[in-house]
Amino acid sequence: MYRLYYWPGLQGRGELVRLTLEQAGATYEDVARKPEAEGGGARAIMRLMKETAGVAPFAPPILEHDGLVLAQTAAILDYLGPRVGLAPESEGDRHHALQLQLTLADVWSEAHDTHHPTTNALTYEEQREAALARSKAFREARLPKFFGYFERAAAARPGPYVFGNAVSYVDLSLFQMVRGVEYAFPKAAARVLAGTPALAGLAARVEVLPNVAAYLASPRRLPFNEKGIFRRYPELDDP
Amino acid sequence: MYRLYYWPGLQGRGELVRLTLEQAGATYEDVARKPEAEGGGARAIMRLMKETAGVAPFAPPILEHDGLVLAQTAAILDYLGPRVGLAPESEGDRHHALQLQLTLADVWSEAHDTHHPTTNALTYEEQREAALARSKAFREARLPKFFGYFERAAAARPGPYVFGNAVSYVDLSLFQMVRGVEYAFPKAAARVLAGTPALAGLAARVEVLPNVAAYLASPRRLPFNEKGIFRRYPELDDP
Repeated sequence: MYRLYYWPGLQGRGELVRLTLEQAGATYEDVARKPEAEGGGARAIMRLMKETAGVAPFAPPILEHDGLVLAQTAAILDYLGPRVGLAPESEGDRHHALQLQLTLADVWSEAHDTHHPTTNALTYEEQREAALARSKAFREARLPKFFGYFERAAAARPGPYVFGNAVSYVDLSLFQMVRGVEYAFPKAAARVLAGTPALAGLAARVEVLPNVAAYLASPRRLPFNEKGIFRRYPELDDP
Repeated sequence: MYRLYYWPGLQGRGELVRLTLEQAGATYEDVARKPEAEGGGARAIMRLMKETAGVAPFAPPILEHDGLVLAQTAAILDYLGPRVGLAPESEGDRHHALQLQLTLADVWSEAHDTHHPTTNALTYEEQREAALARSKAFREARLPKFFGYFERAAAARPGPYVFGNAVSYVDLSLFQMVRGVEYAFPKAAARVLAGTPALAGLAARVEVLPNVAAYLASPRRLPFNEKGIFRRYPELDDP
């Protein structure tokens, strides 16, 4: 039994762990989405962070399994992937999977900073001018660079997935990245994806994997929204 | 023989790999610091990134070892640590080492964004207004949060290091973080470190490890400077 702790009400970074657990068909509890009366809610996260002895989490997502309390999305996936059959087989590939996941983590951080470039202590509206400048740089320089990089990874090896014939947590995260960027920046995403057919195709293949498709159609999948990392503010997209 | 590829002229993220190789007493080549005529320089990095088949690096630092070309600082340290005796022994601790290293990576990214909050395509001076706002939020909210978190990690277990009696790559990175923040934000660092004695003590212990001390006194150690991640612009520090 895996226990995932992540802010209720948004996909955020927790979604990368959810997608992996769902595609694996693993038994898990999404703790903070349960009612507070049943030990859920954001208070369950705060309690776990406070009470963990030794190396504690800095922030969610947090995975609890077999007595281990582990935070940081890429560290969680590096732990979880091999246990649920969603990591590549060879040791070299496993190091490369972590490498790719860390570059994916950079996309999440930079996408967050498009709407909160200065501080999380202020609302988007209060840092809108800085957000406009940061988003322009993200759309024009960073997005093509990231997607071009992942296009090369998606096309590097024969087979439908980054590491060949077997799907891995990296493929699931690439799917989520593509859909997230499409949600937040529909015009910029369409422009960039026109030049990255291998990445677009990979996302489409992941989306129809039976377990992923069943998850996406279920109430367990939260919709993208303006509390998450990928937020749609039309003025931040291509003009 | 390890080969490290990192931008010549700055410590940056490559320094975390250098410190680990140096403390281990490993044989390594700092490729890009050799003259171009001897196959060094930034061109050596560009060539490696372009010519790597399969999963290529997105950016340096890059470690080349035993046919593996691996990028992303934390992925490199996760690979390197156990091979050179600078990772904790138990499997659970190794996952926690990676977790801590990923939170350290966030410090590097956020320290970078204090002087380049909008885009790397412009100079610091061209985004100075945004940098002032971002730096204030970093000093007042993020720095105390990060250092408080690492204080707790440094004090969690008996013994001089985060994982007890044996030094690990995480301790080396914590040393570099403390010295980097002290360089960039001397006033803010002094203020925050006054409340984090375990972290300050850890940095001081790492600094006098014989191999680390010999490295720091050698020409292999580049000084902090305004090309790196931690940059000293006095107006970005506490008033």
